[in-house]
Amino acid sequence: MIIVLRLRHRIIRDQRLSTHVGLIARAFGADKLYYSGQKDEHLEKSIVHVVDTWGGNFKIEYIKNWKSVVKEYKNKGFIIVHLTMYGLLANEIIKKIKETSDNVLIIIGGEKVPSEAYELADYNVAIGNQPHSEAGALAVFLHMLTDGKEFNIEFEDAKLKIIPSNKGKIVKKLKD
Amino acid sequence: MIIVLRLRHRIIRDQRLSTHVGLIARAFGADKLYYSGQKDEHLEKSIVHVVDTWGGNFKIEYIKNWKSVVKEYKNKGFIIVHLTMYGLLANEIIKKIKETSDNVLIIIGGEKVPSEAYELADYNVAIGNQPHSEAGALAVFLHMLTDGKEFNIEFEDAKLKIIPSNKGKIVKKLKD
Repeated sequence: MIIVLRLRHRIIRDQRLSTHVGLIARAFGADKLYYSGQKDEHLEKSIVHVVDTWGGNFKIEYIKNWKSVVKEYKNKGFIIVHLTMYGLLANEIIKKIKETSDNVLIIIGGEKVPSEAYELADYNVAIGNQPHSEAGALAVFLHMLTDGKEFNIEFEDAKLKIIPSNKGKIVKKLKD
Repeated sequence: MIIVLRLRHRIIRDQRLSTHVGLIARAFGADKLYYSGQKDEHLEKSIVHVVDTWGGNFKIEYIKNWKSVVKEYKNKGFIIVHLTMYGLLANEIIKKIKETSDNVLIIIGGEKVPSEAYELADYNVAIGNQPHSEAGALAVFLHMLTDGKEFNIEFEDAKLKIIPSNKGKIVKKLKD
């Protein structure tokens, strides 16, 4: 099971990026997005709408106290990974993470990540030690963690499905 | 050489996402970001500031006529890749792309990508056929195209460099 936790969401400033984070989590095979910061109906609706159209069981849930959620999953045996440019290089640590457990909680910061995120994490992991993007980092980390599951995943109960094509858009309607 | 072209940038709505796209391009080894749409001083400054601090020769340039830039690179022998959820799966096409040329121009849409992008591209490529994120798609595509160059890349003339660490932040000051 793969859970993503997005810290410190701010409604206006982060809405699109947090939506991207949620959609990446779903598309790359994670099961759920928790987010802390400001509760955001619009963010939740965007994600629920995508699940409704494109299928699967991906969930989104707002949480006030992110530390208690991290501790809860830690107690359930999940590995806690915090993605940060300061962390260990993912290519050097990913094998160890995969071998330790299939259950991973991935913490994604916004700006000003609290120091507890670094401390609570079993692994602070970097997709390269350069500044870039929590969305990019999450996508590459999930790609590595699941060995490219985004290319094979099938979503149950989808209304629409894309048929890969080199030109144009081929969308198959599966149900209303 | 790897060039990224971001289409239809809008100053308010896309600023953070386009910044992420630019930073991903740089961190994963691309040489330059072109962007069309609205010219955005703030976007350009953010990218230039990161290059100034963290090194390398990454460039950003606004262009009015994106089609002529694509045609120019096509004439120079670049492969044109357009990242889209409707495209061929990257894992099935990446080997062919790598074998054809080291020079790739990657087109990244915003909303409402013009049909010319699909037509001008040699390859329309999907990082999975689900809706997610142009930032996530770019990061994973560059990771695959460069075989994880983001983990080994060194940026010349950097003022700061991170020493990977499992707890906390270790930043080495290389020069003022």
